[in-house]
This record gives sequence, structure tokens and C-alpha cells, in this order.
Amino acid sequence: MADTDREKLEAALKTQGELVRRLKAENSSKEKVDAEVNKLLSLKEKLGLEDGKQKFVLKTPKGTRDYGPRQMAIRERVFGIIIDTFKRHGAETIDTPVFELKETLTGKYGEDSKLIYDLENQGGELLSLRYDLTVPFARYLAMNKISNCKRYHIAKVYRRDNPAMTRGRYREFYQCDFDIAGVYDAMIPDAECLKIVHEILTGLQLGDFLIKVNDRRLLDGVFAACGVPSDKFRATCSAVDKLDKLPWEAVREELVGEKGLTLEMANSIAEYVCLHGGRDVIARLQADERLVGNSREMQDEQKSARAGLADLDLLFKYLDIMDISTQVQFDLSLARGLDYYTGAIFEATLLAPENAVHQDDGSAPGGVGSVAGGGRYDGLVGMFDARGRRVPCVGVSIGIERIFSILEQRSESHSVRTTETQVLVASAQKGLFDERLRLLKELWAAGIKGETSYRLSPKLLSQLQQAEQSGIPLVALLGTEELAAGTVRLRTVATRQEVEISRDKIVEEISKRS
Amino acid sequence: MADTDREKLEAALKTQGELVRRLKAENSSKEKVDAEVNKLLSLKEKLGLEDGKQKFVLKTPKGTRDYGPRQMAIRERVFGIIIDTFKRHGAETIDTPVFELKETLTGKYGEDSKLIYDLENQGGELLSLRYDLTVPFARYLAMNKISNCKRYHIAKVYRRDNPAMTRGRYREFYQCDFDIAGVYDAMIPDAECLKIVHEILTGLQLGDFLIKVNDRRLLDGVFAACGVPSDKFRATCSAVDKLDKLPWEAVREELVGEKGLTLEMANSIAEYVCLHGGRDVIARLQADERLVGNSREMQDEQKSARAGLADLDLLFKYLDIMDISTQVQFDLSLARGLDYYTGAIFEATLLAPENAVHQDDGSAPGGVGSVAGGGRYDGLVGMFDARGRRVPCVGVSIGIERIFSILEQRSESHSVRTTETQVLVASAQKGLFDERLRLLKELWAAGIKGETSYRLSPKLLSQLQQAEQSGIPLVALLGTEELAAGTVRLRTVATRQEVEISRDKIVEEISKRS
Repeated sequence: MADTDREKLEAALKTQGELVRRLKAENSSKEKVDAEVNKLLSLKEKLGLEDGKQKFVLKTPKGTRDYGPRQMAIRERVFGIIIDTFKRHGAETIDTPVFELKETLTGKYGEDSKLIYDLENQGGELLSLRYDLTVPFARYLAMNKISNCKRYHIAKVYRRDNPAMTRGRYREFYQCDFDIAGVYDAMIPDAECLKIVHEILTGLQLGDFLIKVNDRRLLDGVFAACGVPSDKFRATCSAVDKLDKLPWEAVREELVGEKGLTLEMANSIAEYVCLHGGRDVIARLQADERLVGNSREMQDEQKSARAGLADLDLLFKYLDIMDISTQVQFDLSLARGLDYYTGAIFEATLLAPENAVHQDDGSAPGGVGSVAGGGRYDGLVGMFDARGRRVPCVGVSIGIERIFSILEQRSESHSVRTTETQVLVASAQKGLFDERLRLLKELWAAGIKGETSYRLSPKLLSQLQQAEQSGIPLVALLGTEELAAGTVRLRTVATRQEVEISRDKIVEEISKRS
Repeated sequence: MADTDREKLEAALKTQGELVRRLKAENSSKEKVDAEVNKLLSLKEKLGLEDGKQKFVLKTPKGTRDYGPRQMAIRERVFGIIIDTFKRHGAETIDTPVFELKETLTGKYGEDSKLIYDLENQGGELLSLRYDLTVPFARYLAMNKISNCKRYHIAKVYRRDNPAMTRGRYREFYQCDFDIAGVYDAMIPDAECLKIVHEILTGLQLGDFLIKVNDRRLLDGVFAACGVPSDKFRATCSAVDKLDKLPWEAVREELVGEKGLTLEMANSIAEYVCLHGGRDVIARLQADERLVGNSREMQDEQKSARAGLADLDLLFKYLDIMDISTQVQFDLSLARGLDYYTGAIFEATLLAPENAVHQDDGSAPGGVGSVAGGGRYDGLVGMFDARGRRVPCVGVSIGIERIFSILEQRSESHSVRTTETQVLVASAQKGLFDERLRLLKELWAAGIKGETSYRLSPKLLSQLQQAEQSGIPLVALLGTEELAAGTVRLRTVATRQEVEISRDKIVEEISKRS
């Protein structure tokens, strides 16, 4: 349909709609109203509208978004820094399918399992979109009987969660995971994971950050010392995990009201989870007999707490050697949501106010929360092995969407180049397209990134504007005079300076300047 | 369960299984057999087996695979060459979600729609996994009202097709798409798409290849000239599309038997679709009055055929200027399956016998078929626009999985490095872990890719073996003697030569050698 026809139809539709409304307001006869409503519907049909809706809902699915060229330029820069870091630490990379057998994901995520996307049963296997990269990694290790591996994996994962897009919370989002699998000496791989988080957050220049560490075994020891029965450890842990978002009173309410702890237990927990610091706090806890027992008589949880504290102390020793312990804090309130952690856990948060981001609901800017998290999961691979063989693992996941949000908002004030084009081949007169194409072919053959207008006879001004708008630094200008003289004019876009260069030297000259 | 316990249980299971089989063979009493079967089942349960099956089916979904580090190293090299080419031609990049609203994909793929993966309706929008990158690109352009765009997009797409994995046919596979959207002068963007395919296939060193070109308007003209009624053009086209896999007799059978053409029509089509060549064949067809009519009286299909031929001729002129016309052939049998093409179409095939690949069914090696394809689709964006605004597009998709198959098979005979580690920090005696970590920290800070053993006291030999096996070129060796002397021994793995270097110069020295 031509645009003008469409406009006439739309005007008619508007008039007809007003007529129907007026007739209804006037309580006209049903026959009269129906006749005009039918005319209205037929107009809507002609316009491809149904019930006033467009034929196509033009959107991406809820909680997802397209990345335009500008976002992609930022994303590639971020990925570059992250991948360089992973490679500097000797990591390989792998990739796994976007979906897994449904049963592969079953029983791995606790309460969060309800957020998994299932595929429709179209005959054949039951499939689900991956929820994280850790479970597919464990499945990969078990399936291929791999007992040592240091790999990174950058890919999208899927969670049917409530999106908060401006804060970087999506239903489809990237994870950048680095994991070390294998039986090694205590805390060496764990320390390297923290070093990697430190290098990445430093490299991205996101401002001050803090990496919190804790240990699941120590948390279990704390719960035991506070009198919590062991079957309530995981529930208690997931309530404590909310301390970074909720005040203690709300968490206590959950512990006592929902999880069935006594007020006394909750108050004892409070005394522990407010503790944070460095090796001094570890030392204090190592002297806490309620927590670690004494050497003559120890319960299992006390042994675990003791082991967790010893490992945390060793971890801090390695962090000291690597000069990163000032940005790492032992924090007993850190719990981490997922079920599969068995030892050290960690989480990194940005501190600087410059990282405050705009809120969905228009309220005051807030922090972006955690930008990296991880921990040790020594039991997960064994869940996939028919013989239950254990492959101890530790890893960290960079929460890249929140970092994108920050960098996108920062970049709003300045231009971001979305191509890498070095030279635009332009012509001053009509009819020189073949000459432009001939020069471009030579530039491409020399590995130079070049473009030309897709029009046979574009205006010179519009070509120069294209170069300026796209940030292309050079223009190679062909004109009838230059062609006759066997030359090309080379224009530096920033300074508007032009030099005349011999046609057979132009490729070399542009190479030199790139 | 400890491995030794497990072995005992498995031995017991085997004995018990033999006992049950013997009792059954001896026709023992039902009571006796049942009692022993129950013991067998309880053993299976202890071992985590049910009905003799493993608890977990350890596999990736049908038609998908993991990429291990070796495959990833090959994949990254291929992507590098492809992305460099796209960028050399000034392309931006975008990304879209892995799933789209189901209605976005409806009515775009003809018969192939049955191969789309749908997500389960878990409440909310109905979603499908993307089937290609072209329809999401058109949706992106319409949604953002973009009328000019040159972009590439590398991402996975999903088709519930019959997989043939050794030939690189998967249900989850990569597409590498390059498209140019906008109103431009005829065949300029189309020629650039062919140039890009040519540069990529040349760059990947895959051996000889041939790019076939045709035009949908010309095909329609041929069908009209052969007497085919216009409502059978698309069906005729999809039958002709099978000519690269089936002999003419089988296609004729389909045209006459299934599609309802007369034998005469089919025979006329045969005369046309056997034609292939260069501008000479185009010229011959331009003189074919049945096809192009004469200037006084022309049917619509004849006008279309005339326009298609003129554009093909112009295309070859541009290919001549770019020196690539010898690898491009005009081929009237090329039809392309998808509904949305409206003008030029193209497809690239590898020719060299070295690209023959092993067949799934163990039969003799065959070719890998098409490795790139594309064409002009001027109507697709308009399908997403409420006002039907048209954005003409042309693009090409590189069929990367087939290329991976070839390169993976080629690489089987030689080693592929999966990490980029430049130096392994090793120690000659026990107890030097802290010293190793201290040196490693300095190397990382200098941007050097370094690793060390995750054991506190690894054997020297196993460290040197690690370096050799992973292809790490240098070993920085710490020992008690060197520590006392303030030096480090630097070993070149390939030659086994060692030099002693001052501890405070070692980072600089390794930097120099990298």
C-alpha cells in the first residue's frame, strides 16, 4: 500500500471512530450503531489492524534486548579485557549447547529451578535452556571423564526472573566463567580465581571495589554453634544470603517466622554474621571454642569450621603475596544462593558512587550490587558420574550485564566508533564508480579497511559527511583532473588537509598512515 | 562411596546377575528366582543404577555437541579471518536474543517452519528459538526504523532437522551473516557480498571453490516462458532447488508427479536449467524472445526476466573489475530454498577433493556441499512494518560448521595449542610455592601469560612435561641455589637450553622473548 493511500485510510478510520463513539453516546438504535461499527471494522481490516492492534507486535521477548552497533562496540572492548585476563592465566576455552537435557539441570539449583526455561515437547528429548555455565561444565567434565581442566566460557544463560533492565538484570544475559577443576593443594586455585576478579575489575576501570570471601563449611559450623539443627542449614543459609539487600530485622523475621529457628538461635547468628575483616577476625574465630571445639572432643561441624578457617587463613596468605588482600574482606554474612557450593565462596561489589545507576521506578540512583561471584563446588561433577567420582572445582563468574549497564551509561556523553574503517574512497564528479571500485579492490587486497558509497554518483558533500559521521580518518578522493594526472587526493578528515599522491603510490601511503 | 567399596559392590552385582540367569535357565521355582532378583535389584539400587540404566544420561541433546579446547582453537582462528573480512568492508556488528516471539518467525520460512524449536508455554509470551539471523535482522531494522545498515552477526541458530554431524550438519549451528540494507544503485551491494565470500574462502585456504549466481526474477521468467502458471512458481522453484542433490529425472518426476506440471513444461524447464557460464550465457538469454519478449509487447514475467538479466550482467561487470569473475558462474539451476529472496541469489561450493569428508554411514567420502549462500530480499523488512515500508536488503551467510568439519579433520594429524601461555614458573625443590607465586604475580603485572603448578611441591620432571605437552615455550626455574644467588634459570623448552638470569631482570628478559 502506498503511504498516501494509507494516510487517507487512517484519516477515514479516525472520522469513523468518532462517529461510532458519538452514536453510542447519543444512544442511537442498535442497527445504526452496528452498521457504522461494521464500516469501522472493514477500515481496520484494510489497514491490517485487528481490534485496533497492529498486525505485528514488534518487540524482543520480555527481559531481552538487541545489542546495537554501539552496545556491541562496548561489549567487545569489555570481552577483550576479560578474555586477555583469562588467557594470561593459561585458560583454555570450551563451548556447550544453549540447551541441555532437562534432567541434567534437575536438582542443581534449589528454589531457583522454577526459573528454568523449558522447550516444548515436540517429540523427542525434553530440553531446557541452560541456567548457568557451571552445571554444563560439570556435565562436560563427567561425560568426557576429565579430571583436570582450567577453562573459561563466555556465553548467554537464561532465567525466567523478574527483569530490571536498566540495572542490567535480564532474562537472557551473558556469563563469563573461569573455573579450575582438579585435585590440587589447598586454596591455590581459589586464590587465583580472586586474583582474576581483581585483575578484571581493575582492568575495566570501574572504580573501587571490594571482594568478600567466606566459607560454606564455616557457615555450617556457625549455624551448628548457634544450635540450628543440620536439616535447616541450607534454609538458614539462603535467608542469611539476603543480608546484602535486607536489614537484619527482616532476615531475623524470616529465620524465626518462616524457617522455624528460635529467637535465641537467630540472635546468636547475628553475633557471628556481623563479623568482617581480615586475618585478625579469622584468628579470633579460631579461638572460639563454641565454634571450633577443642582438640579432645570435636563434632563434625566443628571440624568443618576449623578446616574452613584454616583454609581462609591460607587464602589470605596467598592474597598477601599477590598484593591484593587490601581489596578482599572476610565477611561472615556472605552466604551465596546456590546449593552446590561446598567450601570457599566469594562475591565482588563495586563501591564508588560513580557506579550508581538509574532505577527502573524513577527513584534515586542505587548501586549495581554484585559484579562477580563464585566459590568451590567439590560435589557437582560427582552428581553426573555413575560411579560418583569427585572432581573438585572452584570458579568465578563475572556478571557482565551490570558492567555493560555502567559503561553504556558512561559512554552516553561521548561518541563510540562502531566500525574500524580507515579510508573512504570518494569521487568529486559523477560516473567514477568503476574507478572507486578499482582503488577499493587494491586497498582490500593490502588489508586496509575501506568503504565507498553504494551510489553511482553520490554528492561530494554527502561523502565527506559520511566520513565525518562514522569517524573514518581518511578520504581518498578521485576526480577527473586527478585521473588525468594519474593522482589521488588524500584528505585527513580531522584537519581537512589534502595532499596529492601518485595513483601507484596511494595504497602504500594509506598503509603507512594506518 | 569410596572406589574400593564400589568395586566390591560391582563384583557382587555381576555374581548375582549370573546366579539369576542360571536359575532362570534351570527353570528354578518362581519363589527362588524372585528372591535372588530382589537381591539383584537392591544391589543395583546401592550402585545408583535403576533397571540396569545409569542414573543420568550423560549426553548433549540430539544434533548438538560440545566444543572442546581443540575445536575452540580452530573455531577462533576461523572466526578471526571472517570477522577481519567483515571489518575490512566497514561492517558494524549487532546481536539479537536467541529466541523471538513465535509470531515474528511465522510465515517466513515456507515448508521449513516445521523445523522451528518452540519454547514451552510457561505463562507469558509464546517464544521460538531463532531459525536464522536474517529474520531477526529484518525485525531489528523494522523495530528501530533503520533504513541503512551494513552489519555482520555471528551467532547460533536452531533447526529440528535430521543431523549428520560428521558432515557438519547440526541442530544447533553457527551462522556468520553479512548484510547490507538500504536503497542503493543496482548490484553494488550484491557485488560486495560476493567479494566478501571470495575473500573469506580464499583466506581460509579451503582449496578451489565456485560461487554460483542466479536471479529469482529470471527464474520466474523461465517458469512463465515454459508455461508454468504463476501460482506454481514457488513450488517449481523448490523442486529445481534440489538439482544439486538429485538427478534431473528425479526432479522432473517431482515436477510432474507432485507439483502437477505437464511433461512439456518440465522438458522446457530442463533446457533452461542446464545453462551455466558467464556473460556469454546472459547475452544469449537476452536474445531469447520467449523469455524476455520483445519491446512492443511484454508480459510482467518477461519484464522481470529482462531486469534480472540486466542486473546479472552488471554484477559480472563489477566482478570483473574486482578480478573475481573467474570463480563466479551464472547457473540457471540455482534456486535456493527460502521463500523470501526477490532478486540475485548465490551459493558457494568447495571443489577440491581434499575437502571430501567422512560420511556418517561409512560410505565413501563425499563433498561438503554449499559453504555459503545468500541473496537479495527486498520484501522481508516490509513484512514487519505496520505501514509496509520497504527496506531493500542483500546478504550472505557463511556455513561455518561445514568449514569447521573440514579444518578439524585436517588438524587431526598435528597438534593444536589450546592455550597461549608463554612461561611456566617451576621449582626444582620442595617448599618454593610462595616464591613461584611471587614471580608469577610480577609476570602477570607485566602482561605476560604465565602459569605454575597448583601443587605445593610438584616434581621437576612433571613440571617440565607439563610445559612440553602444553606447548609452553619457556620455563622459569627457581631453585634454592638460584634463590641464594639472586637468579632464575630460564629454559627454552624446544632446545632445552638454560641461561641464568638475575632475578630483577627476569621479567624484562621474558617480555623481550615473547
